[in-house]
Amino acid sequence: ALGVGVMQLTYNTQNLVGAGCYESNDNGLSDFGRDVVTEMNRLGILVDLSHVGPKTSEDAIRHSTKPVAYTHCCPAALKAIPRNKSDAQLRFIAEQGGFIGVVAYPPFLKRGADSTVEDVVEAMAHVIDIAGEDQVGIGTDFVQDQPDAFFDYLRRDKGSGRMVARFGTPSTTRLAPEGLSTIGEYPNLTAAMMRRGWSEARIRKLLGENWLRLLETVWGA
Amino acid sequence: ALGVGVMQLTYNTQNLVGAGCYESNDNGLSDFGRDVVTEMNRLGILVDLSHVGPKTSEDAIRHSTKPVAYTHCCPAALKAIPRNKSDAQLRFIAEQGGFIGVVAYPPFLKRGADSTVEDVVEAMAHVIDIAGEDQVGIGTDFVQDQPDAFFDYLRRDKGSGRMVARFGTPSTTRLAPEGLSTIGEYPNLTAAMMRRGWSEARIRKLLGENWLRLLETVWGA
Repeated sequence: ALGVGVMQLTYNTQNLVGAGCYESNDNGLSDFGRDVVTEMNRLGILVDLSHVGPKTSEDAIRHSTKPVAYTHCCPAALKAIPRNKSDAQLRFIAEQGGFIGVVAYPPFLKRGADSTVEDVVEAMAHVIDIAGEDQVGIGTDFVQDQPDAFFDYLRRDKGSGRMVARFGTPSTTRLAPEGLSTIGEYPNLTAAMMRRGWSEARIRKLLGENWLRLLETVWGA
Repeated sequence: ALGVGVMQLTYNTQNLVGAGCYESNDNGLSDFGRDVVTEMNRLGILVDLSHVGPKTSEDAIRHSTKPVAYTHCCPAALKAIPRNKSDAQLRFIAEQGGFIGVVAYPPFLKRGADSTVEDVVEAMAHVIDIAGEDQVGIGTDFVQDQPDAFFDYLRRDKGSGRMVARFGTPSTTRLAPEGLSTIGEYPNLTAAMMRRGWSEARIRKLLGENWLRLLETVWGA
């Protein structure tokens, strides 16, 4: 009933639109990919680049006439994996009016399985240093109560091919930081921001105001 | 009942496997594309590169452990369009044990709508000069009794998107050379080869023996 509000252009590997962040060679948006971004702009669908390759992301940021987003990612400066975004990438999307949601997923955070809610706030602080506090928000990548088979499907090429993203499964890996194991624990995130001494105005922006403004811009008439 | 014997890797534009010959940027085989060629080799399916981009074709020729084919194309040296193959491309596929089928489709031939059966034999002669007479055959691209809507579907990206290949339709373009308007007229091709003074041994190869040997190699146990 609400329609499609957000779409990723690719998921880890190459598709008709472009290359994912685990594809060996990223050649940028395809001709069809440019048509897709144009049509998403026209329909008011947010372009999500979280699992998209760096060149395809850059092409999409340039081609889109509306703000785009890495809705869920972490800084590669803190944890260097292909799924995270370099400082140059974070700077570029912010300069072009785009948005960055910060992930609370241990394999993407600096201390991996030992991560706590403090590491999530540290990742947010790094992104704010680069992008300012008006284009950043929560982007948890939170998955709860799914079996190993679900993660196996996500991580293989097209669900059953080559293993593309090796991050373990619920039975082998901690998938949420200590203090953020369930949705119900999210007030701990607010508390960690307050411990860091951030102002109420900044915390309100990070907890939702920035997201609302982005979606109003992209979805609004 | 016979199974799938031949598959093209792409059709004009980018797909999960690689780029087509009308894609603006051809980045070669994707990671999934390499898996696809490996699996086609295992199953004994001929890899067809006719509508595939030059870099993706080169990657596939290198990656395949069995001979591959431009099953239907013409030399770009005689008609420079993206769908035709350069002398360097024809030489490379032949050196790697591959095969070239020569098209009898006026828009790909030197004299366009004025083409006759003689132009088809001239295109074959050009390919034989580069690839020798053992890896060349008929690859007509012959379509009979289809409405304009069928060609419109073929020529648009994914059937209904951007117009990709602009070659007209049956109501605006001559789609078969004079002397080869129907399958029934194909003995005229043999006669044109004989007029050119080619030996019976060469003509037998071109009319089918080369094709049979290729398919035996790829399909055979």
